Amino acid sequence: MQLYSYFRSSAAYRVRIALNLKGLSYEYLGVHLLKNGGEQLSDSYRELNPAALVPTLVDGDVALGQSMAIIEYLDETHPDPALLPADPVGRARVRAIAQTIACDTHPLNNLRVLKYLKRELKIDDAAKDAWYRHWVDLGLGAVESLLANSPATGKFCHGDTPGLADLCLVPQVYNARRLECDLSAMPNVVRIDAACRELQAFDLAAPDKQPDSE
Amino acid sequence: MQLYSYFRSSAAYRVRIALNLKGLSYEYLGVHLLKNGGEQLSDSYRELNPAALVPTLVDGDVALGQSMAIIEYLDETHPDPALLPADPVGRARVRAIAQTIACDTHPLNNLRVLKYLKRELKIDDAAKDAWYRHWVDLGLGAVESLLANSPATGKFCHGDTPGLADLCLVPQVYNARRLECDLSAMPNVVRIDAACRELQAFDLAAPDKQPDSE
Repeated sequence: MQLYSYFRSSAAYRVRIALNLKGLSYEYLGVHLLKNGGEQLSDSYRELNPAALVPTLVDGDVALGQSMAIIEYLDETHPDPALLPADPVGRARVRAIAQTIACDTHPLNNLRVLKYLKRELKIDDAAKDAWYRHWVDLGLGAVESLLANSPATGKFCHGDTPGLADLCLVPQVYNARRLECDLSAMPNVVRIDAACRELQAFDLAAPDKQPDSE
Repeated sequence: MQLYSYFRSSAAYRVRIALNLKGLSYEYLGVHLLKNGGEQLSDSYRELNPAALVPTLVDGDVALGQSMAIIEYLDETHPDPALLPADPVGRARVRAIAQTIACDTHPLNNLRVLKYLKRELKIDDAAKDAWYRHWVDLGLGAVESLLANSPATGKFCHGDTPGLADLCLVPQVYNARRLECDLSAMPNVVRIDAACRELQAFDLAAPDKQPDSE
């Protein structure tokens, strides 16, 4: 398999963790989002991924976009270890935590959105950082409530094995720390992030461990 | 089952279509996002859904948030008719189309984001509408490419039966039309939206058919 990735992309980071947890080796192909006018916008990359976003996973003759779809694909084609629980209610809970990050938080703070705020709406850096922190506060705050209010929360987001929710949580916390967001009201988020990062699968997927990191 | 919904919510609209396609009856509970300071922000609603977003599906003693997690839950607990194909590559394709809308398009244009742009960033209505159309152009444009470039596209997004991708597409096209977005370069999107809306399951889920519509 080949993974088109950018070291700092939160969505690519999720997929790197999933591949590592499943023990799948892959070729790392860097797509630099800032250099060369944005390598993800090139015609050749768009042929693989019309949305012009990272990551793209190539498995044989199939090219797949969208990190959450890729992770579910990996879970279906390489079921051990499972990234989702077996019961439908548990699966819905894990997907809901993951989507609170992947749908409600991260899309508001990714690079193309921040660029639009700056270039088109002419907002200054302070307003841009406040925007970033606002959506992190809301999104990770909702995740904290989902974790704090449920007996299903364990060492990780759902029980004592890492899964889909954890591999969304860790990259989002990484982003939150980069922007110096206040996580003091989110003890479960902070605790689970730390537990995950002790695992080699998460550690080796970290942005600063990637071949294209700066 | 009970569905906490707002007639115009794109995420709730998706779940209404899914419930209808599966022939599941449910009690409709309106949560008005604009009245009473935003009913989704009330303490009682937050107890059900800490993210303070619609929809929430209540099935027995379980309350589930996040439209995409809810739809996968319905597909697992009521598998007929299936909303995802059987093969992993097909499932990944359908999920990727759905997430191009649910992660990359809709979150940028929902009510709380538009409010932030207006109240905090003080942008005028013209700039707000341009923002809206920009993300629709990119998001539905990517969907159009995914549809146009694949032999798996049929009468609907994937083959000739409606599924997860279609029930994200129709609410997003509804929103696009409300904001007068130009869809002329998206013939597959327009064609599939029309085919879907001929089906009763989609028609009965439309915003103007809901008990809380104005």
